[in-house]
Amino acid sequence: MELVYKGKTKDVYRLADGNFLLRFKDDVTGTDGVFDPGANTVGAKIDGNGKNCLLLTRYFFEALAAEGIKTHYVGSDPDAVTMTVEPCRPFGKGLEVVLRYKAVGSFFRRYGDYCQEGQDLPGLVEMTFKDDARNDPLVIKDALVMLGVMSGDEYDTLKDMTLKIGAVVKKKLAEHGLDLYDIKFEFGRNAKNELLLIDEISAGNMRCFRGGKWLQPDDVVAAVLGK
Amino acid sequence: MELVYKGKTKDVYRLADGNFLLRFKDDVTGTDGVFDPGANTVGAKIDGNGKNCLLLTRYFFEALAAEGIKTHYVGSDPDAVTMTVEPCRPFGKGLEVVLRYKAVGSFFRRYGDYCQEGQDLPGLVEMTFKDDARNDPLVIKDALVMLGVMSGDEYDTLKDMTLKIGAVVKKKLAEHGLDLYDIKFEFGRNAKNELLLIDEISAGNMRCFRGGKWLQPDDVVAAVLGK
Repeated sequence: MELVYKGKTKDVYRLADGNFLLRFKDDVTGTDGVFDPGANTVGAKIDGNGKNCLLLTRYFFEALAAEGIKTHYVGSDPDAVTMTVEPCRPFGKGLEVVLRYKAVGSFFRRYGDYCQEGQDLPGLVEMTFKDDARNDPLVIKDALVMLGVMSGDEYDTLKDMTLKIGAVVKKKLAEHGLDLYDIKFEFGRNAKNELLLIDEISAGNMRCFRGGKWLQPDDVVAAVLGK
Repeated sequence: MELVYKGKTKDVYRLADGNFLLRFKDDVTGTDGVFDPGANTVGAKIDGNGKNCLLLTRYFFEALAAEGIKTHYVGSDPDAVTMTVEPCRPFGKGLEVVLRYKAVGSFFRRYGDYCQEGQDLPGLVEMTFKDDARNDPLVIKDALVMLGVMSGDEYDTLKDMTLKIGAVVKKKLAEHGLDLYDIKFEFGRNAKNELLLIDEISAGNMRCFRGGKWLQPDDVVAAVLGK
């Protein structure tokens, strides 16, 4: 089993059958020990976080499968804290697709002159390059096409998929009393050039609120998985 | 004649007939005395720059009129360094529409991982809010619609107008041996809700090169107006 990538929150191994194995770690993004899903550095470590991310990802990927939405998920082994996935090529050097239901975080920092913090958004999809040195720059559809990252049709498909996936995640969270403010996804193309949701859906990739209070990842896990 | 706005490079007066008068100043945007069309602060003063901006704007607005493209331009008085314009409501608190033919400036700073500095772009239109405190943030079409700044149809129309206007300006500059790398425009809605190009088209709003060398505003004026 060959280690092919050491990420901030996961390590990636190549399996003999062509699939990949993701090993979830306890590191989370943040600054000075405080969790921040929008941060680019590992700033905190939460015991058991890797396993919680895996369990939450499995929970959501299975919910998506039940709705007929295909992802790169093949299976998981909670004891080994690993998930087996179908190989997919990322967009460019990594692209984050952000879905926003509320004006918070970097959206409010950018457009605070045009909105109230926390105001509703009817599902805004934005794309940003994963580029720590450049602070994950926002990029418009036409630029993505001109830079050869994706076609215009792929952009439209990713936007539609993001809204559908987000609706499922939001509904599942609401069943547990949680309000999804924003969430980021990653997509890739498989060997058949199908667009698939990749990476994970865990508490570190979303902002959830309950009773107007922002929940830390452990509280999201406790609410959804009842642990 | 009532002063209604003191800008970085122009002052705006309301005329008795309902039109507005723009008085061009010698201040230019930049930092530490060096001109930079992308800067947000007045950092330099160039004697005669106001009059040059006015003459260049008149030159381009008349060229656009000859191509059937309507702008807010009504007339001008070079001796008074003023231009009379039709009143238009800006988008939001001011929106800049940037047209890029080359990957330079803030585009290259954002996406340097995906392009070579100076590589060709086939006319990319980006929109940014005029917001000095937030460093003129880029904003995507869907966000402009959700924030109530414009409709989706208005976005598409502005993009088309920008490409048409840019083609005229690029062609005029090429006739004088200049290569247009990027340029920023502002648009507004007049009393009939028509979308019109507003503000100015001058050397301070564009990056022009000749023989691979970036030209200062005075050199652009000299090349185009022969002075």
